[in-house]
Amino acid sequence: MTSRASILPAEAREAFRAGLVEPTSGWSRGYAQANVLSIPREHAFDLLLFAQRNPKPCPILGILEPGQTTGPLLAGGDIRTDVPKYTVYRDGEKVDEPTDITGYWQDDLVTFLIGCSFTFESALQDGGVRIAHIDQGVNVPMYRTNRPCAPAGAMAGPMVVSMRPVPASQVADAVRITSRYPAVHGAPVHVGNPEELGIADLGRPDFGDAVEIAAGQIPVFWACGVTPQAAVMQSRPPLAIGHAPGHMLITDARDSDYLVP
Amino acid sequence: MTSRASILPAEAREAFRAGLVEPTSGWSRGYAQANVLSIPREHAFDLLLFAQRNPKPCPILGILEPGQTTGPLLAGGDIRTDVPKYTVYRDGEKVDEPTDITGYWQDDLVTFLIGCSFTFESALQDGGVRIAHIDQGVNVPMYRTNRPCAPAGAMAGPMVVSMRPVPASQVADAVRITSRYPAVHGAPVHVGNPEELGIADLGRPDFGDAVEIAAGQIPVFWACGVTPQAAVMQSRPPLAIGHAPGHMLITDARDSDYLVP
Repeated sequence: MTSRASILPAEAREAFRAGLVEPTSGWSRGYAQANVLSIPREHAFDLLLFAQRNPKPCPILGILEPGQTTGPLLAGGDIRTDVPKYTVYRDGEKVDEPTDITGYWQDDLVTFLIGCSFTFESALQDGGVRIAHIDQGVNVPMYRTNRPCAPAGAMAGPMVVSMRPVPASQVADAVRITSRYPAVHGAPVHVGNPEELGIADLGRPDFGDAVEIAAGQIPVFWACGVTPQAAVMQSRPPLAIGHAPGHMLITDARDSDYLVP
Repeated sequence: MTSRASILPAEAREAFRAGLVEPTSGWSRGYAQANVLSIPREHAFDLLLFAQRNPKPCPILGILEPGQTTGPLLAGGDIRTDVPKYTVYRDGEKVDEPTDITGYWQDDLVTFLIGCSFTFESALQDGGVRIAHIDQGVNVPMYRTNRPCAPAGAMAGPMVVSMRPVPASQVADAVRITSRYPAVHGAPVHVGNPEELGIADLGRPDFGDAVEIAAGQIPVFWACGVTPQAAVMQSRPPLAIGHAPGHMLITDARDSDYLVP
């Protein structure tokens, strides 16, 4: 197998379909990765409305209509097999972490493909901003905040944020660079003061791993695609299937497709 | 009554609620007007998905959830009475043009409030670009094009555009000014060649009125909020209620709320 960074999306999906299971960070550099969330059509209006009202944490890259298993973002692929690992929820409770969801599939499932901040990390690196969690070899730290999202029907919950420590001299660069990617969370929602977001201890993230924050670095917070999963679970749909954390769908869209001038 | 341009939105809605019937062009200058479309929840997912896939013709300003009759865009108002005139469709056919829809209301109706290009006309005028249909005292001309929208479930149809003739020396200004209002259709979708859009005769619009095009003026086309109404009618929902053409909802949002840098 060639280096993970240079594998094309269709080849990556084929490898996962054939049974490979590993996190997708660093795979297929230059191509957008997506959060995946499949729920019954009966609940899909509320989720789409939640996303419309909360575009920063819930940027929609694409939607597969009821029963559809493929689409232009995964040409020739199958959403039931092409994600390395899934999480299955019944009535809001996790019941399984399979590598294939063919056995759980229902013809009324609508699949949301939601932007992921991994997409702007390459641009940050290209701009000279180092990514602590990549350097430290861990998952990005994520935190529930005290900021409620705008509710929609049965969907409600707090905004979840990801955090990257940035040297004070580069905070403006990090804001400027990520602002140009509004479809993948865009500019930070907060800079510098975790207490104001209701985060008591940066060393204890709610999801992902803690990272070391060096002297002179400022914690910078971006809206996170975990937000809609948390809101959906709160509404306890009979069935919901998401990707397992860090195991994203690798799409055919290029990171640059989401760049604005 | 004070001049229509200086009436506040809540006062305008109260006048319409009390029975006044007239087009809203020129009312409450500086406040955004909205296309209105109420359909049963069962059809609302498809329409919201259609809007998500076609943001230029279908910019969502707000959505009232099933049965809701008021919201932040019409504080203290009632969507069943505060639009000057409505159009009621059964199975896609027009059946009534009432000034109050209380008798048609159902608790499963979801109401879409969709951006209207009237919002950027003030900005064009402030930028020195005259609006032909205002100068000529007629409704804006609108045309079905040969450009299909991205379909969503049962919703499909061509993009509908509005046309404003602009002096060649001001086309760049018109593009620049309207680009800054992406939530109300934004930049033009086409400049200069109606044949390419499948429009055979500018003198015979599909909706609204024809305008005179002076020598040296270029026809400029913007995506139009009539597009989703046409797509909804094609799907023939059992009930759909829209505003009557030119008789919009006057919202509490300011035009400037939709301005981007």
